[in-house]
Amino acid sequence: MATVLISGLGLIGSSIARMIKQDHRELTIIGSDPDDETAQFLLNHQLIDRRQTFSEAAPLADFIILAGPVSVILEQINVLATLSLKSDVLVTDVGSTKETIMKTANQLIQNDINFIGGHPMAGSDRSGSRFGSSELFNNATYFIVGQTKNNRKLAQFQQLLSKAAIHWQPISSSSHDQLVCELSHLPHVIATTLVNTAVDDLEGEPLGLRAAAGGFKDTTRIAAADPTMWTAIMMNNTDRINQSLTQFQQHLAQFQKALTAHDESTIKQFLKRARTSRKSVDERK
Amino acid sequence: MATVLISGLGLIGSSIARMIKQDHRELTIIGSDPDDETAQFLLNHQLIDRRQTFSEAAPLADFIILAGPVSVILEQINVLATLSLKSDVLVTDVGSTKETIMKTANQLIQNDINFIGGHPMAGSDRSGSRFGSSELFNNATYFIVGQTKNNRKLAQFQQLLSKAAIHWQPISSSSHDQLVCELSHLPHVIATTLVNTAVDDLEGEPLGLRAAAGGFKDTTRIAAADPTMWTAIMMNNTDRINQSLTQFQQHLAQFQKALTAHDESTIKQFLKRARTSRKSVDERK
Repeated sequence: MATVLISGLGLIGSSIARMIKQDHRELTIIGSDPDDETAQFLLNHQLIDRRQTFSEAAPLADFIILAGPVSVILEQINVLATLSLKSDVLVTDVGSTKETIMKTANQLIQNDINFIGGHPMAGSDRSGSRFGSSELFNNATYFIVGQTKNNRKLAQFQQLLSKAAIHWQPISSSSHDQLVCELSHLPHVIATTLVNTAVDDLEGEPLGLRAAAGGFKDTTRIAAADPTMWTAIMMNNTDRINQSLTQFQQHLAQFQKALTAHDESTIKQFLKRARTSRKSVDERK
Repeated sequence: MATVLISGLGLIGSSIARMIKQDHRELTIIGSDPDDETAQFLLNHQLIDRRQTFSEAAPLADFIILAGPVSVILEQINVLATLSLKSDVLVTDVGSTKETIMKTANQLIQNDINFIGGHPMAGSDRSGSRFGSSELFNNATYFIVGQTKNNRKLAQFQQLLSKAAIHWQPISSSSHDQLVCELSHLPHVIATTLVNTAVDDLEGEPLGLRAAAGGFKDTTRIAAADPTMWTAIMMNNTDRINQSLTQFQQHLAQFQKALTAHDESTIKQFLKRARTSRKSVDERK
């Protein structure tokens, strides 16, 4: 009977526990999380079988899933390098950036430990174990980075999550980090900046944010996400985010130039182009 | 039996027709729209009683609701000034900017015509009569600009939409335009720019926008909205949008400075501040 260690029992970690417990009750799940309340919540709901510290649990596990913020994942990879793990363990993570993680994991791979980077493209503006769901990954893209030395073991891991109809997508760490930079990290910075700008500009306006309708709410929803997780992402994909911000600013400057010039046809062209691209996102799914 | 003229039978106009037809079948609704297919759709669904040109219908109406893009509303106010309207008609509009509209409507007000500016804070990324709904305004803020000479008539208009539990909010045209600039126009420009940036940056990346998850989709949803309507908004609230864009760029530059410096605590502070503000938007409702 295999043992799964899930380290980090927040939105993603607790969702993985829910998926496994729903369809594979024969497995033992050890949960590891520094937060007592979080761990107790998972114990109370029988989503984990027991709680243990990371260093205690790792040597017992057949699957180790690192589901903390990127900064914690990096630390834990360093810890794993000092432990005596099972010879056929699969170590994987769910971090939102992959290049720094794969570089750090190299010490495991060189020691013949089976490490595969992973990143499910699923999330929420709500963080924490209470908001996890066994349906969070349904139909999502799940990026897989690196070569496994044991295909059977990776297939077993994928089997654990099979009910979610995940689209498993192999990708290089650099392609991954560029893609999520555009589709996730840049939008996050922009949504955050939008909120801070609106709050400052509407200071003293009694109605203020209260009058916000669906447009503002949708556009800024992700700004409510966990700042700790997102700070770690910013610190680990810094150069790409920086570059995207510069690109974004250039596009914005072009629009502002057309606006200042009251150039109706350029403004309309800009809006039309975005509309066509944005509509294609929904149509493809 | 009162007659209502709705000019512009898109998302908002057709939603108003739906609301009135649901609760006030005794009224006659004349629909006016340049698009044959749109008008036929409303006739087929008995959401309007007949279709007439704007100039023919306006002199017959007790309520005239201007529900086209801002550019069309401005033209139609000029047309109304040349027509002989009923003496106690209420003319109102649903345009997303109010200052240029109130200035143009001054010629009506000076001729003793009862004009009230209006703006329901409800919309969708989907445009057109097919996506209208009798529930579109439910619990929304509906801004009211200007003084009516006939309070009873305004109350009657509000009564027509009473099922929606609208929050009627009197406001000056300049406060209105500043508020919607921050809560609607700026987010629209930003969402649009985000899509155009991502498309350009991901050119040649086979996965591209297809891998987009909820964060990107939410943040850019409004970029799919009608470019004609939004171009008119940009042309009518130009100076404020321009100023907000400059403010936004300054906030973004501050973030980028912290990012470049790998200044973790400033990054986290920026994200935390946005989170607190964004969470308050949902909690207030």
